[in-house]
Amino acid sequence: MAKKSAHVPSVRDVLEVDPAGVDLAAIDPAATPVGPTNKADAAKAMEAIGVELDQLQENLYAEGVGGGRRRVLVVLQGMDTSGKGGTISHVAGLMNPQGLRVVSFKKPTRAELSHDFLWRIRRQVPGPGQIGFFDRSHYEDVLVPRVDELVPPSTWQARYQQINDFEAELAESGVTIVKCFLHISPEKQKERLVARLQTPEKLWKYNPSDLAVRAKWSRYQEAYTDLLAKCSSRAAPWYAVPSDRKWYRNWAVAELLLHALRDLAPTYPVPAYDPAVELAKLTEADPLR
Amino acid sequence: MAKKSAHVPSVRDVLEVDPAGVDLAAIDPAATPVGPTNKADAAKAMEAIGVELDQLQENLYAEGVGGGRRRVLVVLQGMDTSGKGGTISHVAGLMNPQGLRVVSFKKPTRAELSHDFLWRIRRQVPGPGQIGFFDRSHYEDVLVPRVDELVPPSTWQARYQQINDFEAELAESGVTIVKCFLHISPEKQKERLVARLQTPEKLWKYNPSDLAVRAKWSRYQEAYTDLLAKCSSRAAPWYAVPSDRKWYRNWAVAELLLHALRDLAPTYPVPAYDPAVELAKLTEADPLR
Repeated sequence: MAKKSAHVPSVRDVLEVDPAGVDLAAIDPAATPVGPTNKADAAKAMEAIGVELDQLQENLYAEGVGGGRRRVLVVLQGMDTSGKGGTISHVAGLMNPQGLRVVSFKKPTRAELSHDFLWRIRRQVPGPGQIGFFDRSHYEDVLVPRVDELVPPSTWQARYQQINDFEAELAESGVTIVKCFLHISPEKQKERLVARLQTPEKLWKYNPSDLAVRAKWSRYQEAYTDLLAKCSSRAAPWYAVPSDRKWYRNWAVAELLLHALRDLAPTYPVPAYDPAVELAKLTEADPLR
Repeated sequence: MAKKSAHVPSVRDVLEVDPAGVDLAAIDPAATPVGPTNKADAAKAMEAIGVELDQLQENLYAEGVGGGRRRVLVVLQGMDTSGKGGTISHVAGLMNPQGLRVVSFKKPTRAELSHDFLWRIRRQVPGPGQIGFFDRSHYEDVLVPRVDELVPPSTWQARYQQINDFEAELAESGVTIVKCFLHISPEKQKERLVARLQTPEKLWKYNPSDLAVRAKWSRYQEAYTDLLAKCSSRAAPWYAVPSDRKWYRNWAVAELLLHALRDLAPTYPVPAYDPAVELAKLTEADPLR
């Protein structure tokens, strides 16, 4: 009894999507259901997370140098202005760029479309020891083509299983996948689009097609609901991150990544040599002469 | 006269390699020939550089989103412990990871060796708007195979021209190349190798083969001398960065990158739409209903 009431739910407990009952309308994009409830507390938390992430990242990187195969992939999806880029800047920015692999997936090129939809994704999976960030991903292929009816329904419907198989294969090969759906409200999107249009330095972030996509809001929410329900597995669960508040979104993704790395608990590899022997060679018989 | 004496030599003037007379022995790896002469001044300078780099990087990235093709590639070469990784951590760390592409080239795999030596390099060239960092590069292919006699001399000798052609092609396609040779003394290398062997958290950075390479120091210096002389072009000059002092090395590379970006002077792209029209559409006729 006491034990149960003392259990503090983690970010994963609270934000993990239940594939059996995905209801995006029931999730308040402005909520702070776990963790900090104001910007100042979030900033303080981010500092502590940054210190820990940095160390865990170095350990994971060292493990990779030592022959380990493990790595982490953070997948970010969300409507325009949900903050995929901002999250990368704030969360990946806490770590050493040397161990990062950040990839933005744009509208597929003709060359990319001539391959299966996972082809361009496979080429960008982080290598051993790396932490990857995908700004959009293979999930675009069950969103745009569905909503815009670019392919027959049977094509995009088949992709859920193809995605699950692909992610199971990644997990098998040592990739820990952290999938974050950045959930915003249509009101917040409007506010951010207006801000982009009113700020000269932000005009480049706006594209007239954003309005066409916005007009299909409910169809996109349906498509998201389906992919969250059909592609949440033990190996690669989805998290729905309330993202109307940028500081909460950044904290939540950073904390989710932190938990993933803590579970991996990477450590410096045991050297495949004897440091004392090497030290003796170097100090007593320096090869350089 | 007055004008001439008022000219303060820039980091490029001072560190650029003169291909007609490369003499590495004449360059003191502990010198501070331009810029800050102590750690505190360097830290202060780095702060200012960081602010400017961050803005220029955003502009370049925005230019890429707007259809621009320009990008920057920083190539880092140097003996073991010269600080290629540390430079990336400190210089790339000043910028937004979203616009970065950091690549470490290891010993070529069998698959890589089955292609020409530039094949794996081409695949990692930064995309439009990106800033790339190469930790080792195609220059390894005129170093290791030469010193270890893995290929006939005619093979590595031919590569200088192949590299120059490749870099000219990159420049042509919008890539500004900043090549930095991190120059250290054998004494400093010894000190750093000893430190690695005496620090548990640094053991993973050491490899017994480091001593074998160290034993061939002078042959590597010869190989570096030749590549600096044969592959310094107007389009892609080499800079010799004194790297015995980490703070000087970091400052110099950051400053070289800053100058390259200032020359490019990237700006936010002119929007291909009318912001007023879009704003009206969004506020007066919100497509979302």
